[in-house]
Amino acid sequence: MTDTTDPAASPSPTAPPPARAAAPPAAAARVHLDNGGAAVLHPLARQALVQALDDGWADPRRLHTEGRRAARLLDGAREAVAGIIGARTEEVRFTASHVAALHAGVLGTAQARRRAGGDVVVGATERSAVLHAASAAADAHRGSRVTVGVDRHGRVDLETFRAAVARSGVAVAALQHANGEVGTRQPLDAAHEAARAAGVPLLVDAGASLGHDGAPDAWDLLAAQPTDWGGPAGVGVLAVRQRVRTAPPGPEDPDPWAPGGVSVPAAFAAAVALQAAVADRVAQDARRRALVERVRGAVATLPDVEVVGDPDDRLPHVVTFSCLYVDGEALVTELDRAGFAVGSGSACTSGTLEPSHVLAAMGVLTHGNVRIALDRSTSDEDVERFLAVLPGAVGRVRAMLGVEGL
Amino acid sequence: MTDTTDPAASPSPTAPPPARAAAPPAAAARVHLDNGGAAVLHPLARQALVQALDDGWADPRRLHTEGRRAARLLDGAREAVAGIIGARTEEVRFTASHVAALHAGVLGTAQARRRAGGDVVVGATERSAVLHAASAAADAHRGSRVTVGVDRHGRVDLETFRAAVARSGVAVAALQHANGEVGTRQPLDAAHEAARAAGVPLLVDAGASLGHDGAPDAWDLLAAQPTDWGGPAGVGVLAVRQRVRTAPPGPEDPDPWAPGGVSVPAAFAAAVALQAAVADRVAQDARRRALVERVRGAVATLPDVEVVGDPDDRLPHVVTFSCLYVDGEALVTELDRAGFAVGSGSACTSGTLEPSHVLAAMGVLTHGNVRIALDRSTSDEDVERFLAVLPGAVGRVRAMLGVEGL
Repeated sequence: MTDTTDPAASPSPTAPPPARAAAPPAAAARVHLDNGGAAVLHPLARQALVQALDDGWADPRRLHTEGRRAARLLDGAREAVAGIIGARTEEVRFTASHVAALHAGVLGTAQARRRAGGDVVVGATERSAVLHAASAAADAHRGSRVTVGVDRHGRVDLETFRAAVARSGVAVAALQHANGEVGTRQPLDAAHEAARAAGVPLLVDAGASLGHDGAPDAWDLLAAQPTDWGGPAGVGVLAVRQRVRTAPPGPEDPDPWAPGGVSVPAAFAAAVALQAAVADRVAQDARRRALVERVRGAVATLPDVEVVGDPDDRLPHVVTFSCLYVDGEALVTELDRAGFAVGSGSACTSGTLEPSHVLAAMGVLTHGNVRIALDRSTSDEDVERFLAVLPGAVGRVRAMLGVEGL
Repeated sequence: MTDTTDPAASPSPTAPPPARAAAPPAAAARVHLDNGGAAVLHPLARQALVQALDDGWADPRRLHTEGRRAARLLDGAREAVAGIIGARTEEVRFTASHVAALHAGVLGTAQARRRAGGDVVVGATERSAVLHAASAAADAHRGSRVTVGVDRHGRVDLETFRAAVARSGVAVAALQHANGEVGTRQPLDAAHEAARAAGVPLLVDAGASLGHDGAPDAWDLLAAQPTDWGGPAGVGVLAVRQRVRTAPPGPEDPDPWAPGGVSVPAAFAAAVALQAAVADRVAQDARRRALVERVRGAVATLPDVEVVGDPDDRLPHVVTFSCLYVDGEALVTELDRAGFAVGSGSACTSGTLEPSHVLAAMGVLTHGNVRIALDRSTSDEDVERFLAVLPGAVGRVRAMLGVEGL
């Protein structure tokens, strides 16, 4: 029996975290440019989440009034997401996270189609969760992960993809709608056509695009990421067309795609945020594309800096560049000190120091990588201020490493 | 491209759910007695969650100020939970749900210890998630699920348990701290002693007890359920002693026990709620035990009604009874109409009509089962009002079925 410990003596999570006092002086004017996969919570999502703590706190599987009310909120959220992605409500499931949706989509389809074979076809720039799930599924069914290469912009080689799905023994294929790290769109319609011709279900990762770009309709399974469009953490989306056979990968559960169920308030807030993002998507599109153009142009003038990703056929809000002779973590830290939160390296392992597998697959510089993803709240002035401090930050990091220039 | 749909034309999740207008007139005075596994959100947890939407919205794996602040909140939450359960901070992991913690605990330990054998020992009244995970783990490693029977109060047979874990070929054993459906405590110290003597790690499901009863210290792995103590949905707890070998069951991920990570605000709010529950646990204990005694005494006087679970060695806040000639769903619905939310059947499948495997294992009546779990906000008056309407509700359901009496 250990709960006789005086709770007041143990560190209280209600107290402000001690290190907040050590925040840099520039904290008041901070600019968040690291919105890819971790956007600022949309104000309407925040409001919806708080409201749903009152209306949707109960377990939606219980039979009483409170349970049924929570179930209705959850169904409403599924219906709203379904309407936006062009699916039926019953085809949409909430999962515990975007990664969980990708894992379940790959593993569940591979399991259901194991008689067709054990191979899983993926693009080389899919996010790590897809690559790892593909390897796990292939291992489980004595197949191979077949990784299709990309060009210098990160676009998958269509002929190789076509040939890969057309071979016998393929259980499932996965291709992203657009790459979240460099912004490049994939040739989804043609890839889906090839997969359909081969009778292979295609899982589309729309985790970096939904809410920012038009929703794709060329998919058999679709995964999407609420934290990318201003929704809360702790919830993901997996849509599966009714014609696709899948088998949830874990132990039996009343909610096998999200064992134990999801947070109703989180799912509700995710749907509200998506509706809000879609409602002003077109207006945001031109504005954010112009800001990205401005960044691309300015950054390209810096010495030994390479802007990566397709210059035209891309997401409206993402721009990534790599700086020779610079350590990515050091540059993120230097920009953080100057008041700017940016991403670095692979979107999925940005907290680690591993070089980005996306940039490596593209054959471009993996050094000193910075990814900017603009929020709808990002202003022209934010971008101009960032461009004003960037050369100095790169120069300081290079100077620490003894590199001249800038 | 389907997001050109007019969002205003699709069902908006921001609008109040239509069926709310059809709520019963008694809604204002509703009493929530279905707190087992789905308690009313603790006011401090609500406050903490809303606060953490501002302080902890960022991805805790990112390297900038906002990411590090979220990481500190998450670490603080782990530290707070660790202090209460008598673990080291690094032994505590947040998962996507309590079910996910149970699945990962069973599957991960069975995987790491597969050379010791493929058998998994469980009590017959473990929750469905444990039983299903045990079956899945045994299937994966060519072993068997060994289910140890219970007595009429739901207490596992110690001698059988001892013999089961002592046999060779056992990878892991699981036993609940107390049963959430009938309240009976398990002989955990003796069971852990037996498992330790056999070199078999014991997973303890404290999902129905933590925050209500003293925290157990006889465990190798411990799973707990924030929604049971007034925390939010979408987060679970899995603690693993450092000496225990485990292998996360899914594909490789930076956070393999919760692929994609958990919601920092949810984890933070869960820890705050647990601290609050523990802080007034002793004061609540006597009060709630007295109320449960009152219910047990009153219900036992009704004809053909059986109170189940150990009368003394039990959780302080749970009481369950079964009514002959009554359908459980009908009784829940009848009580709901009268303004009382109660649970029925197995805690894990209460939204389904399957008879409770817990009651079946105990050899007691599975008909017309009602479970009451008192919150700290439940008053004497709430309980008296419930006891006043109960006989009439049972009588009406029996009358519908043509049964006389009451």
